[in-house]
Amino acid sequence: MKNPRNIAVVGVSGYTGLELAKILLRHPAAEKLTFYMRDTQGARCLTELFPQLRGQATAPLRQLSLEALAQSGAGTAFLATPHEASAEIAPALLGAEMQVVDLSGAFRFREAETFARWYQLPTPHAAWLAQAVYGLPELYAGEIARARLVANPGCYATSAILALRPLCDSGWLAAEAGVVCDSKSGATGAGKELRRDLQFSELDENFKAYNLFAHRHTPEITEQTGLAESQLVFATHLLPLARGILSTIYVTLAQERSPEEVEALYRRTYAGRPMVRIWQAGALPELQHVAHTNFCDIGFALDRSGRRLVVVSCLDNLGKGAAGQAVQNFNHLLGIEEQTGLK
Amino acid sequence: MKNPRNIAVVGVSGYTGLELAKILLRHPAAEKLTFYMRDTQGARCLTELFPQLRGQATAPLRQLSLEALAQSGAGTAFLATPHEASAEIAPALLGAEMQVVDLSGAFRFREAETFARWYQLPTPHAAWLAQAVYGLPELYAGEIARARLVANPGCYATSAILALRPLCDSGWLAAEAGVVCDSKSGATGAGKELRRDLQFSELDENFKAYNLFAHRHTPEITEQTGLAESQLVFATHLLPLARGILSTIYVTLAQERSPEEVEALYRRTYAGRPMVRIWQAGALPELQHVAHTNFCDIGFALDRSGRRLVVVSCLDNLGKGAAGQAVQNFNHLLGIEEQTGLK
Amino acid sequence: MKNPRNIAVVGVSGYTGLELAKILLRHPAAEKLTFYMRDTQGARCLTELFPQLRGQATAPLRQLSLEALAQSGAGTAFLATPHEASAEIAPALLGAEMQVVDLSGAFRFREAETFARWYQLPTPHAAWLAQAVYGLPELYAGEIARARLVANPGCYATSAILALRPLCDSGWLAAEAGVVCDSKSGATGAGKELRRDLQFSELDENFKAYNLFAHRHTPEITEQTGLAESQLVFATHLLPLARGILSTIYVTLAQERSPEEVEALYRRTYAGRPMVRIWQAGALPELQHVAHTNFCDIGFALDRSGRRLVVVSCLDNLGKGAAGQAVQNFNHLLGIEEQTGLK
Amino acid sequence: MKNPRNIAVVGVSGYTGLELAKILLRHPAAEKLTFYMRDTQGARCLTELFPQLRGQATAPLRQLSLEALAQSGAGTAFLATPHEASAEIAPALLGAEMQVVDLSGAFRFREAETFARWYQLPTPHAAWLAQAVYGLPELYAGEIARARLVANPGCYATSAILALRPLCDSGWLAAEAGVVCDSKSGATGAGKELRRDLQFSELDENFKAYNLFAHRHTPEITEQTGLAESQLVFATHLLPLARGILSTIYVTLAQERSPEEVEALYRRTYAGRPMVRIWQAGALPELQHVAHTNFCDIGFALDRSGRRLVVVSCLDNLGKGAAGQAVQNFNHLLGIEEQTGLK
Repeated sequence: MKNPRNIAVVGVSGYTGLELAKILLRHPAAEKLTFYMRDTQGARCLTELFPQLRGQATAPLRQLSLEALAQSGAGTAFLATPHEASAEIAPALLGAEMQVVDLSGAFRFREAETFARWYQLPTPHAAWLAQAVYGLPELYAGEIARARLVANPGCYATSAILALRPLCDSGWLAAEAGVVCDSKSGATGAGKELRRDLQFSELDENFKAYNLFAHRHTPEITEQTGLAESQLVFATHLLPLARGILSTIYVTLAQERSPEEVEALYRRTYAGRPMVRIWQAGALPELQHVAHTNFCDIGFALDRSGRRLVVVSCLDNLGKGAAGQAVQNFNHLLGIEEQTGLK
Repeated sequence: MKNPRNIAVVGVSGYTGLELAKILLRHPAAEKLTFYMRDTQGARCLTELFPQLRGQATAPLRQLSLEALAQSGAGTAFLATPHEASAEIAPALLGAEMQVVDLSGAFRFREAETFARWYQLPTPHAAWLAQAVYGLPELYAGEIARARLVANPGCYATSAILALRPLCDSGWLAAEAGVVCDSKSGATGAGKELRRDLQFSELDENFKAYNLFAHRHTPEITEQTGLAESQLVFATHLLPLARGILSTIYVTLAQERSPEEVEALYRRTYAGRPMVRIWQAGALPELQHVAHTNFCDIGFALDRSGRRLVVVSCLDNLGKGAAGQAVQNFNHLLGIEEQTGLK
Repeated sequence: MKNPRNIAVVGVSGYTGLELAKILLRHPAAEKLTFYMRDTQGARCLTELFPQLRGQATAPLRQLSLEALAQSGAGTAFLATPHEASAEIAPALLGAEMQVVDLSGAFRFREAETFARWYQLPTPHAAWLAQAVYGLPELYAGEIARARLVANPGCYATSAILALRPLCDSGWLAAEAGVVCDSKSGATGAGKELRRDLQFSELDENFKAYNLFAHRHTPEITEQTGLAESQLVFATHLLPLARGILSTIYVTLAQERSPEEVEALYRRTYAGRPMVRIWQAGALPELQHVAHTNFCDIGFALDRSGRRLVVVSCLDNLGKGAAGQAVQNFNHLLGIEEQTGLK
Repeated sequence: MKNPRNIAVVGVSGYTGLELAKILLRHPAAEKLTFYMRDTQGARCLTELFPQLRGQATAPLRQLSLEALAQSGAGTAFLATPHEASAEIAPALLGAEMQVVDLSGAFRFREAETFARWYQLPTPHAAWLAQAVYGLPELYAGEIARARLVANPGCYATSAILALRPLCDSGWLAAEAGVVCDSKSGATGAGKELRRDLQFSELDENFKAYNLFAHRHTPEITEQTGLAESQLVFATHLLPLARGILSTIYVTLAQERSPEEVEALYRRTYAGRPMVRIWQAGALPELQHVAHTNFCDIGFALDRSGRRLVVVSCLDNLGKGAAGQAVQNFNHLLGIEEQTGLK
């Protein structure tokens, strides 16, 4: 068995990869750390590409070669690579007796066909898909600890699923009623690709909805909550700020509840799960509360009828929404305290 | 009859009042213009308080005295005053044969009790309430033209009502289904009061929901759309930008419709109403498109079932959401082209 | 003689060109207006490319052809084109008896060699260079009125020259002392090109200096003020906002002056020049004061010695720094009031 | 001798105090930690006032009583209190055998009269003033290690002094020439007081200079660099972002230097000082590089003459500019690695 504390991070050119690098560089269980990129531009360490990292811990940077990586001795690989790259790289590394935390969408779905349909990409190898565990530790800590392939959830999906699961699992939702999830994300959530609508002059003082009825995180939310696709409307928006997702979620309860009951349901669900913080009835979380953290904060408001509930869920899209959660999953793979390196 | 082109603007210390001043200072039908404030701090013209206005047209600034105002010869008064002040000032000016465009919430409701309940303030005089016309010119142009008291709508309410009325009036909404209106506003919408959460360091890189189930614009939306209070969930959020409101509105249609039908419904409703711009099916408006304008832009997305519809409506909260709309109402009062001074 | 109120605008794809289009579309002297682009993408009017312009005045959009343009009957052309394009287009149009306002750097320098050296581009035709007038109306109104080719100044240069000329022309500057011009610009000043450092996630919450000792506006400032290159340090910075330039300028006076004397010098210089607003001693202008205007605001602070002076100059880089100033020049070409269409 | 790892933090209601609390809560040498406020509003721990801190380490919060504090057993006190409060509290705690890191301006000057003149407040007790060490560890590490009272520098002053000292100490500056320090700060640097100009709607998309020739950090810079007041012009500006200071500093060198020589001078000065990072000739630091860190980044550009030098220095005003530096000083007081708790 390879040493899981010998870590390879594949893909550090994007915002998620860089955040992952920063967290792992100060993670106490990262005994050895190596970064891999498709094109290192001749750089041999991260600080040549990101001079702002100078003066911190460092680690070597290598041109990506699956063969070399498989023989490097690394026991854990994080893949901060595009969906299609992950679909190809993960099986190779798993075959080399490594464990993999994949941050792409390639292994998030139980049904191979779901990925193909929503991502317009070839389906990853079904054998591995079956073994992949959805990396939401608040729900699947046990499975993750035993997994070799962890599919790190989407950022929007994490905020929505953590808010909805207590209601779905408890049977509190009115069966017939629709669920609206109105989500808003900062710009790093859209990635680092050069896009006109992500230019400062276009997004500054701007706000817009996008990808209505078509966002790829939709099937994650339905699969993980058990909601029918016809029951969920999921809408995404772009905020003029760098980091953070806030989802405002509208549900109807099957029967009247008090604010105290709702709060108790959430507290019960996430007891012993310190990365989810429940706000007391009447108080609502804000993006600044979770920026640069690995928390998902959840608050709510209930109307006088006790049946119409609005849940507000927020997190840092690069933290609990991506890199932080990947490290939380890694901690579970190692069997160490899940907040290690995340506070 | 007093000259309606001799105009008094009461209350110019807030963002709305200042925007109103800027528009009216270049309005071709403003033959005479006088500004009034509770406390002019000794200033005799606006530029002493707002030096950034120097070099533009100007007008005298006076300490507010209802008596003096009533005898000033002004035929039209704009009230950019707090709700309770408007409730007191408007009747006095109406009694002096002036016509009034009130930008507060005091005269927006048909039922006196609605104002008292949502604003926790004494009900305005019922006689005047009965005469007040809700100042949404796309819906009530005729009534406004004949009115003496125009109640300028709330900013959020304008964005929601313009998006919902075509669906409500046509009977397209599924009778039993709820309507969710998830609205987001820039900081000037929250006013100029010194508040901790409106400090730059608190709102920058932040985003939050507030006033869930309790926002005062809720009863405007229900009264103007005919939706039951139990049918509408209206949630408001604060954006880290200065100007603009974007509402994302979720409805269920009674029967299947095509995108073309939905677009046609909106175009039909607002034909001849240039201040509402309908986006073609599939395209969505953005806040930058309407900032510093008097437009309300409306776009939508329809899911494959043809029954779940998301409408996106946006406007400038100081423009079509307040001062611009007040001037649009004034144009109707005068019987001149409704875009005068607003392009 | 062609009709100068029949106007062609060449290049409307950038921020400056679009701003110019917006101003000219509501300019009372624009009798006929046609837009030209290298690649119209099949669009026949601006609103097809910029849907946010719908509902306003409009004008035809045409694929750029110098021949067609020269025969179009247009008497005035605005060139919002790259330097090298302007260097080629302007002579062709001047040869067709049109007058030209060029917003690029191609014709701003008296010495042909200056352009070649700072822009690394071939020198424009010397004959036309000699006829070009530097389009700063506060300094050259008379020459502009008689010109056929106006070289619209750079945005930074405008803010620096307007602040420095009163001091230079009056001989108040200490002969031996250096001048520091520390300028800060919003993101639209950097243009619309897709650049990594202009992506929202990179510029948001960021601030940086760039192009030290190498900015192309340096020779405009030295040529127009008479300062030696060795006497001026000009440093530019990028602000996390969309519109505006603020220059903080540090000079040493040859002899002691009072704040009243400094203020009087500036007021005297710009008497009858309404687009430059002088702030009274002790008050300083801010970017918000000039955003979306054609003003250049100038304030200052003088130390107790009466010899060290800091001048603060600010303007909207798309307004007085580019499109607004181009229209101000156009007004002088026509011989109409210089603020026409700019308030 | 009291235990210096038993720590009291006085004043946690402002941005600096809160940042200090966050750093110390995870500092490995903080064996015991207690927070003190003038008015705890009944709260007994920080999370009652700052719910965003929940789920992290915590510490008790107490109503400030100098007597109780002196008898609490704490060996180190951090004072994040107003200048006049620090002037009163520090002597009391020093008298109780505690060591003090004061973040106010009260003890920063060698001359008692300087404080009185620039702060318009009574001079602190001269005996303590004489013992206070200016807490810039890159310059005074030895003195700080032996001190009992450390005066933590101002945020602007830190950025300016670290950039200027290598030039001043080496005698490289031209004797006769002036120095211009053009500094720009984010909004948290202006504190948490409710001020109109710090409201989001006022600072968003805005930028301005303030306090010209009058900023209180001026005498820190002159005292620490040896520059005469008549030689330095120090100008401060407010940026539309939350955290960070960038100073652009203009100097003239006594003789021609190469970029390599300048870089070598800086590297030599700060060798073994990891919290100052020198950028290689031609590259310039940016605010994003230092936000949320304790680094001060310094870069420069030299003109072709080799005598005109522009130095760019940047830091996080709450990090190296305040709370981070205070903890760096604390590490020196303890004799532990200076980056402890700061990476």
